[in-house]
Amino acid sequence: MIERRFDPTTREWRTFATHRQDRTFLPAADHCPLCPTRDPSSPGEVPASSYDLVVFENRFPALVADPPTPPLPSTPLYPVEPARGATEVVLYSDDHDASLAQLGTDHIRRLVDVWADRYRVLGSRDEVAYVFVFENRGEVIGVTLEHPHGQVYAYPEIPPRPRAELEAGMAHLRRHGTCVFCDVVARERADGLRLVTQNDAFLAFVPFAARFPYEVHLIAHRHATSLLDLTDPERHALAELLETVLRGFDALFGFPLPYVMSMHQAPTDDGPWLEVSHLHLEFTPVHRTATKLKYLAGSEIGAGAFINDMTPEASAGRLRAAVLGAR
Amino acid sequence: MIERRFDPTTREWRTFATHRQDRTFLPAADHCPLCPTRDPSSPGEVPASSYDLVVFENRFPALVADPPTPPLPSTPLYPVEPARGATEVVLYSDDHDASLAQLGTDHIRRLVDVWADRYRVLGSRDEVAYVFVFENRGEVIGVTLEHPHGQVYAYPEIPPRPRAELEAGMAHLRRHGTCVFCDVVARERADGLRLVTQNDAFLAFVPFAARFPYEVHLIAHRHATSLLDLTDPERHALAELLETVLRGFDALFGFPLPYVMSMHQAPTDDGPWLEVSHLHLEFTPVHRTATKLKYLAGSEIGAGAFINDMTPEASAGRLRAAVLGAR
Repeated sequence: MIERRFDPTTREWRTFATHRQDRTFLPAADHCPLCPTRDPSSPGEVPASSYDLVVFENRFPALVADPPTPPLPSTPLYPVEPARGATEVVLYSDDHDASLAQLGTDHIRRLVDVWADRYRVLGSRDEVAYVFVFENRGEVIGVTLEHPHGQVYAYPEIPPRPRAELEAGMAHLRRHGTCVFCDVVARERADGLRLVTQNDAFLAFVPFAARFPYEVHLIAHRHATSLLDLTDPERHALAELLETVLRGFDALFGFPLPYVMSMHQAPTDDGPWLEVSHLHLEFTPVHRTATKLKYLAGSEIGAGAFINDMTPEASAGRLRAAVLGAR
Repeated sequence: MIERRFDPTTREWRTFATHRQDRTFLPAADHCPLCPTRDPSSPGEVPASSYDLVVFENRFPALVADPPTPPLPSTPLYPVEPARGATEVVLYSDDHDASLAQLGTDHIRRLVDVWADRYRVLGSRDEVAYVFVFENRGEVIGVTLEHPHGQVYAYPEIPPRPRAELEAGMAHLRRHGTCVFCDVVARERADGLRLVTQNDAFLAFVPFAARFPYEVHLIAHRHATSLLDLTDPERHALAELLETVLRGFDALFGFPLPYVMSMHQAPTDDGPWLEVSHLHLEFTPVHRTATKLKYLAGSEIGAGAFINDMTPEASAGRLRAAVLGAR
């Protein structure tokens, strides 16, 4: 069963995909389905003996191009829809033990191009309203396959968190006549207090009201609405800054820092969103110290209210030092 | 440092409390600060040799009645406020190893009275807009003290998730003239498909568009806006149903099921909320099987879009069986 259901008490769509209950769960490294196929008699997901970057549809998809009709009827109180969209896997490297930070700027630049391509291709589909590039990294995040990879989900509507951002952006635009992210960029560059690192086109900083202790946002200096809106040198600058930040993350506590990476770009439907869509990547690591995690519990899950044990200024200082040390 | 900061990109308030970084973390059972004080030379939080139920202010508070002035200036882009409000701890029992389910209906009934009392007392404070009763249970939820306890947070504004519910309720009210929760109650009682258990005054069911595999909501049959709106028999009925559900949870996989419990009641400021406030308790256990957890990762944290591997109808069936078996 795969279908989407609407929650009338929050006005959010939720996705149900029961076959995912049986998805591959932390296989041994020599049975990794994302590694290249070295023995043709037991092929993995990629039928090649080596590869650079690979994209394919998730074998346990939550959203698909041609979904089945849901068994339950849709009613006014409880709307039901087929699970239209896409869930893709992006393999970063054929090296099972690689980490994105170590693959080099040129490799990361090719990954940026792959992301831009998937945004374009999936976003051009009629039923897709929002393309969401993300990465779950580390077992504590719930990763079920260790091989370095990210994902791309294409949703049939703008999901709740990007929607909240776009609506906040609209309110700010009406009141001040500016993009709120452009204002944030100007303020962070002027203040410097929460800056982690920057180059000609991108900025990495800890947000003023960060949810997680070591949350870092990467954002374009100028009002670029998506990866497709970037020039060639800007794509390179993004790859370069990504590499710097990722090396800093891994140097922070001396181990590959688990995180969720979420990319927010313009919706791909025809809404009035371009003025308030400002490309940024949100890294939300869950560690609050080398040995303690920031859990989402009552205040976050039940009330949506984040409590953070660290000031963004203190986190930014530690991250700046980690970035410098990793150079 | 303790202060509140506004995120202009989502219009959410976040709370910063740096002293919480050093809070007591999983002490050995014989050093539990929540146990009664048996040796007066090393007193715990409760200066008594035994107790029934106890409420006190969190020793590592995130919100307080008389907060310090924040060091950073408040600006139009980045508003800052003192961390006004309250964060209280509710000890369920003086028995370190007790679980709420085993304490008996009368004990749970007294806990319901304590919750109602804290809602009344904290809600009557001028600076408090929303009183949030919750419980984090189990180490996988991030609990730092094992002793059975819940918490009450009093926020100076309506936090994001209750606000989303109230706004969805307002939209439903304008369109249909009814409380959306009243409509949900009627539908769940008629359908029976997602029902876990019910009595004269309360209903426990798996929501139609549940976020978590074994999510269960307890809700009043009638439009009660808060615990204070309940009659005496209704408070008893809530205690009884809570006991039944908690026993079912513990029977489901044969171990005390970790969960977040979140209670949603009417805001305590003067907004137009009573018509759309319908008392309910949301239990969100994180297990999707006896050995696997539902993690919040990219789709949930970055997009706010929940993917659930189980149908609510299947979960409800298993929970009904667990509840019956635990009787």
